[in-house]
Amino acid sequence: MTMKPFGELTPRVEALEIIDTHIKPIEGTEMIPIGESNGRVLAEEVVAGFDVPPFPRASMDGYAVKAKDTEGSTEEKPIFLKLIGIQHTGGVFQSTVNDGECLEIATGAPMPDGADAVVMVENTKKDGEKVSIEGPVKAQRNMAEAGADMKRGTHVLSPGKTITPGVIGALAALGYIEVEVYRKPSVAIYSSGPEIAPQGQALKPGQIYDINSYTMATVIEANGGIAVVSGIIEDTIESIEESLLSASEHDLWVVSGGSSVGTKDLFSEVMEELGTVYFHGVKTKPGKPTLFGEVDGTPMFGMPGYPTSCLNNSYIYLIPALRKIARLEPKHWVKVKLLMGHDMVSKSDREQFITVRIEDRKAYRVYKQSGDITSMTHADGFIILPIGTNKVDEGEEVEVTLLHV
Amino acid sequence: MTMKPFGELTPRVEALEIIDTHIKPIEGTEMIPIGESNGRVLAEEVVAGFDVPPFPRASMDGYAVKAKDTEGSTEEKPIFLKLIGIQHTGGVFQSTVNDGECLEIATGAPMPDGADAVVMVENTKKDGEKVSIEGPVKAQRNMAEAGADMKRGTHVLSPGKTITPGVIGALAALGYIEVEVYRKPSVAIYSSGPEIAPQGQALKPGQIYDINSYTMATVIEANGGIAVVSGIIEDTIESIEESLLSASEHDLWVVSGGSSVGTKDLFSEVMEELGTVYFHGVKTKPGKPTLFGEVDGTPMFGMPGYPTSCLNNSYIYLIPALRKIARLEPKHWVKVKLLMGHDMVSKSDREQFITVRIEDRKAYRVYKQSGDITSMTHADGFIILPIGTNKVDEGEEVEVTLLHV
Repeated sequence: MTMKPFGELTPRVEALEIIDTHIKPIEGTEMIPIGESNGRVLAEEVVAGFDVPPFPRASMDGYAVKAKDTEGSTEEKPIFLKLIGIQHTGGVFQSTVNDGECLEIATGAPMPDGADAVVMVENTKKDGEKVSIEGPVKAQRNMAEAGADMKRGTHVLSPGKTITPGVIGALAALGYIEVEVYRKPSVAIYSSGPEIAPQGQALKPGQIYDINSYTMATVIEANGGIAVVSGIIEDTIESIEESLLSASEHDLWVVSGGSSVGTKDLFSEVMEELGTVYFHGVKTKPGKPTLFGEVDGTPMFGMPGYPTSCLNNSYIYLIPALRKIARLEPKHWVKVKLLMGHDMVSKSDREQFITVRIEDRKAYRVYKQSGDITSMTHADGFIILPIGTNKVDEGEEVEVTLLHV
Repeated sequence: MTMKPFGELTPRVEALEIIDTHIKPIEGTEMIPIGESNGRVLAEEVVAGFDVPPFPRASMDGYAVKAKDTEGSTEEKPIFLKLIGIQHTGGVFQSTVNDGECLEIATGAPMPDGADAVVMVENTKKDGEKVSIEGPVKAQRNMAEAGADMKRGTHVLSPGKTITPGVIGALAALGYIEVEVYRKPSVAIYSSGPEIAPQGQALKPGQIYDINSYTMATVIEANGGIAVVSGIIEDTIESIEESLLSASEHDLWVVSGGSSVGTKDLFSEVMEELGTVYFHGVKTKPGKPTLFGEVDGTPMFGMPGYPTSCLNNSYIYLIPALRKIARLEPKHWVKVKLLMGHDMVSKSDREQFITVRIEDRKAYRVYKQSGDITSMTHADGFIILPIGTNKVDEGEEVEVTLLHV
């Protein structure tokens, strides 16, 4: 794999293939409380250690009976059974239902020995110790066998499954307190550029506040990663080398900027020296100056310094990489078809991502330069103009990828 | 508002309207670090306290010039300007660009006095102190004015906006460290039923583990709430009263179960006595025994005890209520059109929510009883059968609401 010189831009699909080739799903696992496992990725086989439910139980309020005792009963010609007791939930009835007998029973309560069905309370009348059954039930009706949900020894879930509320429910039913999941990828985030100042101190002349560390950290945390904000890299080879060599402590490494003359090349040169550069420059707008490589086995992104370009490429390139490492399914972007609210011309020889606001089911461009974070702040979504498309007419249908859901 | 006796079931749309009528968006706010504010709801006006960028800056690498000096230049007949220095990012150039002069400048660096445009480096040649300009630029080209992104005093964001990475970017650009957001609604979660046992202890005969506290807590945390798991309510009037009267400490109160005979009525009776019951019983399956009311101004749900019914109704009824309290937009469920993989008959006089697995772009019912949590565990989504529809044929198109994205 040789470095592509800047200028030979890599189209998005090809860039995503290159990224995919060099990204490996995480192997490490950890134990966490089941109540904190939503959205995490299961790393263990889940096998039912006991029957769920652990006992046969009524699934309706009514009377536990021998089904054969109810045969031929109707509202007009009910059959009378002898009431031998009442079965609430949470206890076990010690007696047995014999021929001609029934037991009042609550939904979820254990079925008594001898009974093989429940007659719903709606189809009965109770008169002291006598219950009139006003319709027949078949065996197994209105009850569940032990293990009807999960039979002891059944394979319930495999590693790789993304945990949902329904999965947490199954783990809870099986008495799990903790569950083994893949650990979250650790992602180092750096900013670069001497103009970048951290929040909390007054801006000096020529300085701007760090935006990209925050936006990238947010995207990373929302897509299964742990963002490790690692500060601002100075504009020297030593500083760049030091930061690149810290990569092996992380599962992914990202820098944004810097935009001073020559810095971009400095990053790719140092990365090439210490590892490999897979591509440098993508054929998408905004965000051309995007770099992907590897040092010490850790994949690395060099993102554009411009906030909108950086955030755009976090959506386009960083999320797929991170989710693959985290073993999460690809992000499901919600797309809606809308009409363009105005004529729009936007010339480029690259594929274009154009942020739009939505109003009255029409899309309106957020007209801003790529340096302007507010083009993202005020965007409801974006449309993609393929290479060769430089305009959209008012009223033309466009597909908007929503950013806020 | 009078209580509806159980049996007179409330259709879903009507139930959701009743819920909506009695739910009020939260008023309390709190300050949190901007890096933790993704998905939260902004509670303050954001006005730009200074220009962003704070200074005019180059948006390309090249040479800062007076635009008029470049008029008429071409590759064949370049115009030569005198190079007076270099402007990196992060510092301020003390000198001024005069007629016939230029300053080497990096993207993001402050524009020097006197210059009103940048010529891209690609359209220049440098030879010692002389730079040849090989094409004209107009004033303001390849640079941004101070405040081009956000002008000092501009209204940037209003309360009620859901915070996205793009919003966090704007806050970061404005130097925010913390931001005021609406606080998360606190939701008390109870289970009821003497058969329910907490995880971590061995099951006694007739007991099952608590599932609903976990699934409801997960749904609540994923939809902007703070789940306060509050334990298991005993099957006595005193215990129910005590738990209901704790409601005023929370913004929403939820109980699941119990399924023992009479308990359901006990809850609605005590609720009616201490407050109001708005509906009791919904015309959806699973999940008929669902209760909605209010005590001391806190809205309350009584959810079915069956795990699948409880989780289903958490999706259908609890999420809209919680998101309205939290001031979040309604949940955007992703829906896909698929073909049914087999004939399916399911009779009911209620609207039915039927869980399905997806395989090869076909939907297959997860055949389970509503007591079985695994009908949710193994579901990719659900289909809705309206009242009056009791079957779907193999190959028929169905709309599947996805549960795992």
